[in-house]
Amino acid sequence: MAPLLHLPVIEAAERRIRPFLHKTAILTSSYLDGLSGKQLFFKCENLQKTGSFKARGALNAITAAREEGALKGVITQSSGNHGQALAWAAAQAETPCIVVVPNNAPQPKVEAMRGYGAEIVFCEATMKDRVETCDRLAQEKGYRIIDPHNDYDVMAGQGTLGLELLEQVPSLDTVIIAIGGGGLAGGVSRYITEKNPSCKVLCVEPEGKELSKSLDARNRLWDDSKLLTTIADGCRPLRVADKCFGELLDTVSADHVVTVSDEEIAQSMKLIFERMKLVVEPSAAMGLAAVLQTPEILNDSQNVGLILCGGNVDLTNAVKLMYP
Amino acid sequence: MAPLLHLPVIEAAERRIRPFLHKTAILTSSYLDGLSGKQLFFKCENLQKTGSFKARGALNAITAAREEGALKGVITQSSGNHGQALAWAAAQAETPCIVVVPNNAPQPKVEAMRGYGAEIVFCEATMKDRVETCDRLAQEKGYRIIDPHNDYDVMAGQGTLGLELLEQVPSLDTVIIAIGGGGLAGGVSRYITEKNPSCKVLCVEPEGKELSKSLDARNRLWDDSKLLTTIADGCRPLRVADKCFGELLDTVSADHVVTVSDEEIAQSMKLIFERMKLVVEPSAAMGLAAVLQTPEILNDSQNVGLILCGGNVDLTNAVKLMYP
Repeated sequence: MAPLLHLPVIEAAERRIRPFLHKTAILTSSYLDGLSGKQLFFKCENLQKTGSFKARGALNAITAAREEGALKGVITQSSGNHGQALAWAAAQAETPCIVVVPNNAPQPKVEAMRGYGAEIVFCEATMKDRVETCDRLAQEKGYRIIDPHNDYDVMAGQGTLGLELLEQVPSLDTVIIAIGGGGLAGGVSRYITEKNPSCKVLCVEPEGKELSKSLDARNRLWDDSKLLTTIADGCRPLRVADKCFGELLDTVSADHVVTVSDEEIAQSMKLIFERMKLVVEPSAAMGLAAVLQTPEILNDSQNVGLILCGGNVDLTNAVKLMYP
Repeated sequence: MAPLLHLPVIEAAERRIRPFLHKTAILTSSYLDGLSGKQLFFKCENLQKTGSFKARGALNAITAAREEGALKGVITQSSGNHGQALAWAAAQAETPCIVVVPNNAPQPKVEAMRGYGAEIVFCEATMKDRVETCDRLAQEKGYRIIDPHNDYDVMAGQGTLGLELLEQVPSLDTVIIAIGGGGLAGGVSRYITEKNPSCKVLCVEPEGKELSKSLDARNRLWDDSKLLTTIADGCRPLRVADKCFGELLDTVSADHVVTVSDEEIAQSMKLIFERMKLVVEPSAAMGLAAVLQTPEILNDSQNVGLILCGGNVDLTNAVKLMYP
């Protein structure tokens, strides 16, 4: 049985995955500090292996599973960063890997998965067919399904990002985390809350998610099958997965959620490209959007940690978003 | 009188400018290592203050001049990175600064110079009017002209990049430097050749420059007033300035020059954006273009240092170059 999420679990994950991953740099920008009136510390997970933090959770889930016993292979369904991350992690662990990919997935992402050695199985572009194909193949092959969010080992892997962040910038008084399915937010907020309870955790969400309502109700009020229409494609799942939601209930208060619009995300993305010279995907710009659009939530904050969660973006699209 | 360029001069420059500048990161990419069959180490000067290495030379020139005595102010003519760098450096040194700017200069660059506090004077977009306006104002105001290339203090500042590079990656056996006016190449090749003579220095140039011919002739064969038509706007001057050329004659052999085409530069730029998640200007992609297009010149090399010299690029243009 997977252990629940706590400090020692995240520390064990860190020891497990450390040899394979980058301890990504923290970058700062005096221009953006001036604009926000804060000291901003950006954790560059866009420079992580596979171009996103997802490599952490995927690798921890595979290596933890192997420690528990024989592992025939791993499988997931994904059109994005998790599929690439699992394919890469499986290659590191020399474990067979299948990624079930909707037949409308962007070709470069599929090529990247293949490049890491994963077997690609196409399915219809519906959530129903994605899940069913994945379940059926897992059963046939005896492979373990690695969910992108709803898995304590995945969350523990993402939590190692929080561990590095506090180690690299011990003076942080606030950390802002973009929330999609909840794997990153669950892992990082758990680590920070236990390690340094005086450090505030803020979640930033795209419009329409309404995380505060569910936190207030202490109940998941979402339709599990729905996706948000947002440019932040890493944050499209409407719902937070149940195990992740449990972590957030413990560690994030309902008034620590900031909502940002697509336009605000695009403007922040442009600032990160132009001023920090970093290629980031829209989800990675949500933290800066929160800082710039909702300064009142940072009234008591001085040293703010932000996570540039990934850089896997179609540049032609990115430019259209930034210069509409 | 300005000292000629030697190791202690570059080391003194490093001590002078260190408190104000980033020691920029070295990044690597296992994908690009695989593609090239080498270990590639990228020095990220696109993440330097002002978005390019030019901040080094400009700041060293200003601070060295102040050490020599009173300095009323500094002036240069530039439409690009050197103007921004000088404006920034003058602000650090609390020295008045004028940048003479051709009236067709890109607005964002002019805004950046103003943002650092420089006075902007517009002139006609001819090299003649740029130089004459700059000379006239320098005389009227008693300001010191800081040339972007042809100045030993500027070259010594750029040479500090070589100092950091050898310190960060002592195992380098080859360093590739893009050559424009020659300030970067002069400073870095001098440092490397004196500090570690077994490390090979390669220069990479855009088509049409023909540096090898001038090195072979030990004579500057260029028309000083001409510009190259290349997408690498940081390398547009056809000629290498005379003081810089003197350094190259001492430190670079004529068969250590690689020529790359615009198409090769654009393809490498795309790899750096997509795979390294870094925003770079075309000049910064010339080193990788040399590695990928002329592998035979690296037959004896294993650990290769490349300089991502800047990231000041119009992203709309950059995307058009990368995805024509």
